[in-house]
Amino acid sequence: MTDFAATKAMFHLPKGMIYLDGNSLGALPKGAADAVARTVTDQWGEMLITGWNKAGWMALPMALGDRIGGLIGAEPGHVVMGDTLSIKVFQALAAGLEMRPDRRVILSDSGNFPTDLYMAEGLIKALGKGHELRVVTPEEIASAIDEDVAVLMLTQVDYRTGRLHDMADLTRRAHAAGVVTVWDLAHSAGALPVDLAGAGADFAVGCTYKYLNGGPGAPAFIYVAPRHATRVSTILSGWQGHEAPFAFDLEYRPNPGAERLRVGTPPILQMAALSAAMDVWDMVDMADLRAQSMALTDMFIAGVEAACPMLSLASPRDANARGSQVSFAFADGYAAMQALIARGVIGDFRAPDIMRFGFTPLYIDEGDVRGAIDIISNVMNNQLWDRPEYKIRAAVT
Amino acid sequence: MTDFAATKAMFHLPKGMIYLDGNSLGALPKGAADAVARTVTDQWGEMLITGWNKAGWMALPMALGDRIGGLIGAEPGHVVMGDTLSIKVFQALAAGLEMRPDRRVILSDSGNFPTDLYMAEGLIKALGKGHELRVVTPEEIASAIDEDVAVLMLTQVDYRTGRLHDMADLTRRAHAAGVVTVWDLAHSAGALPVDLAGAGADFAVGCTYKYLNGGPGAPAFIYVAPRHATRVSTILSGWQGHEAPFAFDLEYRPNPGAERLRVGTPPILQMAALSAAMDVWDMVDMADLRAQSMALTDMFIAGVEAACPMLSLASPRDANARGSQVSFAFADGYAAMQALIARGVIGDFRAPDIMRFGFTPLYIDEGDVRGAIDIISNVMNNQLWDRPEYKIRAAVT
Repeated sequence: MTDFAATKAMFHLPKGMIYLDGNSLGALPKGAADAVARTVTDQWGEMLITGWNKAGWMALPMALGDRIGGLIGAEPGHVVMGDTLSIKVFQALAAGLEMRPDRRVILSDSGNFPTDLYMAEGLIKALGKGHELRVVTPEEIASAIDEDVAVLMLTQVDYRTGRLHDMADLTRRAHAAGVVTVWDLAHSAGALPVDLAGAGADFAVGCTYKYLNGGPGAPAFIYVAPRHATRVSTILSGWQGHEAPFAFDLEYRPNPGAERLRVGTPPILQMAALSAAMDVWDMVDMADLRAQSMALTDMFIAGVEAACPMLSLASPRDANARGSQVSFAFADGYAAMQALIARGVIGDFRAPDIMRFGFTPLYIDEGDVRGAIDIISNVMNNQLWDRPEYKIRAAVT
Repeated sequence: MTDFAATKAMFHLPKGMIYLDGNSLGALPKGAADAVARTVTDQWGEMLITGWNKAGWMALPMALGDRIGGLIGAEPGHVVMGDTLSIKVFQALAAGLEMRPDRRVILSDSGNFPTDLYMAEGLIKALGKGHELRVVTPEEIASAIDEDVAVLMLTQVDYRTGRLHDMADLTRRAHAAGVVTVWDLAHSAGALPVDLAGAGADFAVGCTYKYLNGGPGAPAFIYVAPRHATRVSTILSGWQGHEAPFAFDLEYRPNPGAERLRVGTPPILQMAALSAAMDVWDMVDMADLRAQSMALTDMFIAGVEAACPMLSLASPRDANARGSQVSFAFADGYAAMQALIARGVIGDFRAPDIMRFGFTPLYIDEGDVRGAIDIISNVMNNQLWDRPEYKIRAAVT
């Protein structure tokens, strides 16, 4: 059994704060501060350029990829770290379109995180080949998969509602229609068990600053199935994905495997933080994490609904149908969330009316859930959110 | 006058090392360790998600861009940080091609860093519109600019030889032929005065881990001229470049200005290190830096040539025609460089036979140059490099 009291002890959590926003930026693993400081002082400072070999910096994108791969059911050597999630979406989409040159549709849903849709738009416009981004509702996805579709691009867990797509079922349907799949695991990796190999996924992408706790701006990852890795096309054909980066050839020859999906020089300080964050996962069984996540979110829903009839559940009621977050709709949700934040319950707001709360069993326990319910009840039932200062929108919400 | 003893005191330099590889990875500014530690502990640890507003993380890509812009003659608000140099090359190239839809040639030279050429190859292949990457020698560039060329893409300072292109002259020639320019400043930014606005450059890109000392994997930058910024096309249309990133619209609307060239979530820990590194530049006058760089490199060439007739100068002899590095060709250059590194003189090797030495006046002084000449003389004249252990190639050279 995973000892969640032990994992909680591995995080720094600010005093007086109940942090229900680990689905946006994960908390600081205590080991990260030291790991980053050592990388700066002992590696950058003392080894300088020789750190690329001596400290193993050059190998980090694949080594860290394997550690994340272990949480998402990826085959070793097929998860590659670097860049941002937006860039990794672009790589996967471009490669997917190239695999289906006879088709013109990228299919996605309105529950996808906007940047995924934006990256598709930019790619389609630049290619100028008449591709179409077709966006349907999440409920319509299964029936919208047909033989016009080149690529199915979905975020498994809806960032607003937490609604969970059935990856195995949709991948099977996609393959039956000859469709390439790109799964965005931004709200899945570290939040619930994922089995990419078992589902037969073609590509997957994700970020590491949410449930994986890699820190602000932590690098993204991309997965490519072994059956595609040796021939996948690389639109972002950077030198780190070259077969021999230090031969400095004038012509690009891709690395023979998944490592071709590397692009430029990896962000070593961010990777040091992420590496420390991954140490926590060595103590975690994903089935235990999922069970605890379901228990915490069920408890939260029951408590909030009992105390706050003015809040309306925007997440699936069935824990099996949602990720590790709970959202409530409330017309003055922005102000209400500001009032909660002022009282130490940190969630976030997503336009137009969603109050979103993330539950990361690594450092959130039943006591936190009870505490959060009490504060939410007080704020909502006493209309404490109805003050001018809570209604001023910040640049980042 | 810039006080280079004072700037040197702001860096941590390993004992017993003469570091002539700041053109590959700059040394550690003493302020960076604290800056990164504070960002990890006080910002990530204590502010968590609220750091995007409270700690100003969201504004860093443009704020840091302006600090770098001040060193390269860019107009405020037109240098945007993020991603890697490879990605920024891709953005600039795609935008440049879109500005000349009637033309099909990207012109570059064989002295360009390979990843720039690779990114062009990947873009051309994906577009599938019959574009051609035309690579000529550096000497042929001026005469190869003609009305077939859509984009001229050049690295101003040759990474191997240090040969310096005349940015103002080539930009003028390019514009006379209706050609869009993309300047790679990887070996220019922080190495010599650059005047993008004065030269009328269209786009520029660069990295910050070399002469700017931002640390391993520090973010890249992209410059777009104000006359293009409000209408430039964004192939990598990520949410951070959206007009209203937190409106979470399903459709992409670019930011009205240069900020549209942001893509994904910025790497905050890397940016903390870079921010500290930029503090050093507040003490520096670029004309002083250039004068000191020329004096140091002239002194190095004279000393090495006098002592080591077996080394043949691969850089321009005229200091005005080169950047802030000096390269010598030597058939057993790899082994010779390993022997130097073993004795504390850190340069690097670039295939097939280039021994490369970078000079960063911020922390390299005349004493270092004299010391390096003595050690090089000893290694070369006593053939100390001729040992098996120096001939084993490491993964990263």
